[in-house]
Amino acid sequence: MAENVPFQVIARLRCGFTSKFGVPRQSGLAEKVRALVVFEPEFRNADALRGIEGFSHLWLIWGFDRVRREGWSPTVRPPRLGGNRRVGVFATRSPFRPNPIGLSCVRLLGVDSGYSEGPALVVAGADMTDGTPIFDIKPYLPYADCRPDALGGYTDALPERRLEVDFPPELQNKLPAETLEALSEILSHDPRPSYQEDPQRDYGLEYGGFDVKFRVSDGTLHVFDVLTK
Amino acid sequence: MAENVPFQVIARLRCGFTSKFGVPRQSGLAEKVRALVVFEPEFRNADALRGIEGFSHLWLIWGFDRVRREGWSPTVRPPRLGGNRRVGVFATRSPFRPNPIGLSCVRLLGVDSGYSEGPALVVAGADMTDGTPIFDIKPYLPYADCRPDALGGYTDALPERRLEVDFPPELQNKLPAETLEALSEILSHDPRPSYQEDPQRDYGLEYGGFDVKFRVSDGTLHVFDVLTK
Repeated sequence: MAENVPFQVIARLRCGFTSKFGVPRQSGLAEKVRALVVFEPEFRNADALRGIEGFSHLWLIWGFDRVRREGWSPTVRPPRLGGNRRVGVFATRSPFRPNPIGLSCVRLLGVDSGYSEGPALVVAGADMTDGTPIFDIKPYLPYADCRPDALGGYTDALPERRLEVDFPPELQNKLPAETLEALSEILSHDPRPSYQEDPQRDYGLEYGGFDVKFRVSDGTLHVFDVLTK
Repeated sequence: MAENVPFQVIARLRCGFTSKFGVPRQSGLAEKVRALVVFEPEFRNADALRGIEGFSHLWLIWGFDRVRREGWSPTVRPPRLGGNRRVGVFATRSPFRPNPIGLSCVRLLGVDSGYSEGPALVVAGADMTDGTPIFDIKPYLPYADCRPDALGGYTDALPERRLEVDFPPELQNKLPAETLEALSEILSHDPRPSYQEDPQRDYGLEYGGFDVKFRVSDGTLHVFDVLTK
């Protein structure tokens, strides 16, 4: 048996995504999506964040707590490849890996020193759901982490699909400005499962306490209702 | 008490560094340093690496197994700041953090399919010692991980110190070509503890089965002996 090492949950993400549907496929894709990193009681310590505001980006190392499965499969079918081509799990960022560890680069907007549950980090661009456990927070070091010459394998040839978003003003008015801004970006990234093309199908995306109903046809996402959850 | 999550050791790094002294301060700084990622028996599976060779760089998420300490301190003194200024632990990549997790970006040179202990990854630029436990391997995704606009806080203002290396040819001849190439790069990065300036002091750096003796004066590192360990 492989050796086990225990890691403590030091913080949790607080954000508008209560379910996985709509969560951006990688960090940084949806910069309008704001989130809070709230430390667990024993890690609430302003000193531990001293100097962090000099960095524009942070790494979050976290746990895919919603996809925990028994065992692991050596190959997976990444959504970016249409969900029908198998590649080795270590050639993907799939959650279905031997250790369900996530790695995300988020923009640091600031430290909220007055937050009710201790000093919290305000971040943008997270690709995680509300409550996600975080094991480590590290500064993004441009001289070590930014590799402009890197080749991205099968991801290089596949630009992210973007959709036009038709969001009627009367439905926009039901949302706070920040929620609307985030949602517009999330929707433009096409939250549907890869290559699911059914213009009759109704989808519901839950974000920030709202349930946004939409359909997609001919590259345009049409919002047709906004419900309060 | 904070919640604990167990992670399995899926692989171990094999490289020339048997001790921490001389290990590059971040990944990617010493590209001539080659290493092998050797999977633990239950994770030896060529399928799990299918497609990985399309990526030029990988992330390794690993454990600082040599610095395990009880408890953690909210502030640390990074070597890059001369070892005398305290900053918050989450504003550093210091090993002395709540969870001793390391994050390194390495260049993927290839997959060694014929390795005696199962398919292994040949990588360059690792900043880890021999035997380091690895918890996850992910492809570096340029579109998500490369952030050319990132600000590196206190690290931006402090370029890496580089030394001239005076390595007499008769001592170079004692080393295999690849070991010499790696060692020359390692030595140029100044393996001494930060701001330790004593031209009389003898240092010994162990790498690849050799013990390299040197002194440093006026910005030049003078190798004066090479011993076989």
